[in-house]
Amino acid sequence: MAGTSKLIALDWGTSSLRAYRLGQGGVVLDRRALPWGIMNLPVVEASAIGAKAGFEQAFEEACGDWLRAAPGTPVMAAGMVGSAQGWREAPYLDVPLRVADIGAGLIALPTRNGAVLHIVPGLIERGELPNVMRGEETQVVGALRDGAAGELLIGLPGTHSKWVRIDGERFTHFDTFMTGEAYAALSGHTILGRTMERGAPFDAAAFARGARVALGAGGINGVLSTIFSTRTLGLTGALNGEGQANYLSGLLIGHEIAALRAGRAAAQLAADPAIVLIGEGKLCERYREALALYGYTRVDVAAQATEHGLWKIAVQAGLIA
Amino acid sequence: MAGTSKLIALDWGTSSLRAYRLGQGGVVLDRRALPWGIMNLPVVEASAIGAKAGFEQAFEEACGDWLRAAPGTPVMAAGMVGSAQGWREAPYLDVPLRVADIGAGLIALPTRNGAVLHIVPGLIERGELPNVMRGEETQVVGALRDGAAGELLIGLPGTHSKWVRIDGERFTHFDTFMTGEAYAALSGHTILGRTMERGAPFDAAAFARGARVALGAGGINGVLSTIFSTRTLGLTGALNGEGQANYLSGLLIGHEIAALRAGRAAAQLAADPAIVLIGEGKLCERYREALALYGYTRVDVAAQATEHGLWKIAVQAGLIA
Repeated sequence: MAGTSKLIALDWGTSSLRAYRLGQGGVVLDRRALPWGIMNLPVVEASAIGAKAGFEQAFEEACGDWLRAAPGTPVMAAGMVGSAQGWREAPYLDVPLRVADIGAGLIALPTRNGAVLHIVPGLIERGELPNVMRGEETQVVGALRDGAAGELLIGLPGTHSKWVRIDGERFTHFDTFMTGEAYAALSGHTILGRTMERGAPFDAAAFARGARVALGAGGINGVLSTIFSTRTLGLTGALNGEGQANYLSGLLIGHEIAALRAGRAAAQLAADPAIVLIGEGKLCERYREALALYGYTRVDVAAQATEHGLWKIAVQAGLIA
Repeated sequence: MAGTSKLIALDWGTSSLRAYRLGQGGVVLDRRALPWGIMNLPVVEASAIGAKAGFEQAFEEACGDWLRAAPGTPVMAAGMVGSAQGWREAPYLDVPLRVADIGAGLIALPTRNGAVLHIVPGLIERGELPNVMRGEETQVVGALRDGAAGELLIGLPGTHSKWVRIDGERFTHFDTFMTGEAYAALSGHTILGRTMERGAPFDAAAFARGARVALGAGGINGVLSTIFSTRTLGLTGALNGEGQANYLSGLLIGHEIAALRAGRAAAQLAADPAIVLIGEGKLCERYREALALYGYTRVDVAAQATEHGLWKIAVQAGLIA
């Protein structure tokens, strides 16, 4: 096992578990991907060792050998493992909060093999329409540069897209858009899917056509109405099946960005803030294309945000000397 | 068979076929409901009588005996039977158009038993985001009063809600909102359904809470974002499973009405037009509640719109002496 282990970092979500062995300065020495999301744990004989045996078994497979090779290495996890359905609940911290306060909210869970797993809490923003995140807070921390001032807008496109506003050293606000999951439900379980070629390759023109819908006069009707044009543009011969899939993707992402922009305008925030995207590369490129249509030009994509975030929170928390 | 048949009227949609035997003045003498929607036709030995045998068989079951008892009675149908996937395509008529012009667009289809089926065309409104309807145009005609002047706004809530603007004797504009189908897809196939009690009885408070979301400051984020509050209000204990189902229903309907209102404001239309709703009674009541929150108070519900519409179009077309 090459390199000295300084931190074992787990990204433990609903459907997967990723493990990282980090060395000096947070450099990644080893990585593993396991299918053991919290809704998909390994099946073990639970009777003897309690209801959490699946978590113990997954934990062992993820990093048991790393811990035996370097006993005492601190272990951290972020994501749904800290939810009420997870291994141990790490109660939400309230936004707004200082970025540095996340490390003070870790929950320590003693495991069967003697290690202590430190679980990162999720964030909640209360109000009329509450918002929550678990796991994304760690990615956001990983994408921040130390000592940065002013506003930074961080986008995490995906099943549930998050948009997080960082002002200097503080998480000040975040929104959720169910764009990815809505796309899957609409294309898989409504009439729109009947004429659509799902899994179609990227088609920049059809995507941009959809992304512009919320900019046009018809956008005022909102997404419940504009999505029907996916079908009618098929009926009138303007879009084939592949085009329809790309168009619907652009249309939903465009509505997301249009809403984000409207909210920023109402709050009198900068029209072209610095933006950092975190997520799967091709999806981030789609968002970058759509953001440009809405006047957002200062867009970077962050790499290795999860590993970096777990490292930085461990340092904040004093787990790393 | 009591009463003299003047018209046999079919409401032939995707999933069902309703047949009416109408007498003098359009009074309903008999009615039947069959499961033979165009996507669910009876299976018959097709080889001998062609690919449309299922339509012929359904037609025979719907009204063969009525026709034999009163040969020469005119027969009309509205709905998806006139689509490209139907028995015979009745090409769309373009909106705007005069209400009286629909009767001039009927397609005559000779059937195997010697009768001629007259199919009502659907309507299309072309443009950047085209809209189409099939069947609803007939219900709208059935809800209109002869000689009415000024604007009437007709709402047809359902799987695909339609909102139709009638100015005097003309169809001038219509919109589609996929509200009902979006509700089914979101509650059946996203995370929102996991904590929701689907099929919950009506809960006026939770419904109204949802319907008000698009009125509030958070509504600016649009429906892709606000729907997530269905889950978070569950997480925070504000809504139980039944409440979540009612809340999501209200939230989507509220967004629909908010968008309708924004579009009307942009077009400088009356703030409180006369509205007629056509549809299932309980759903119309939900819409009436939500409409009131948005300042729409002049709301009636139409009865027997389909039968009345088929009768009126038959009269327009000269099929009835």
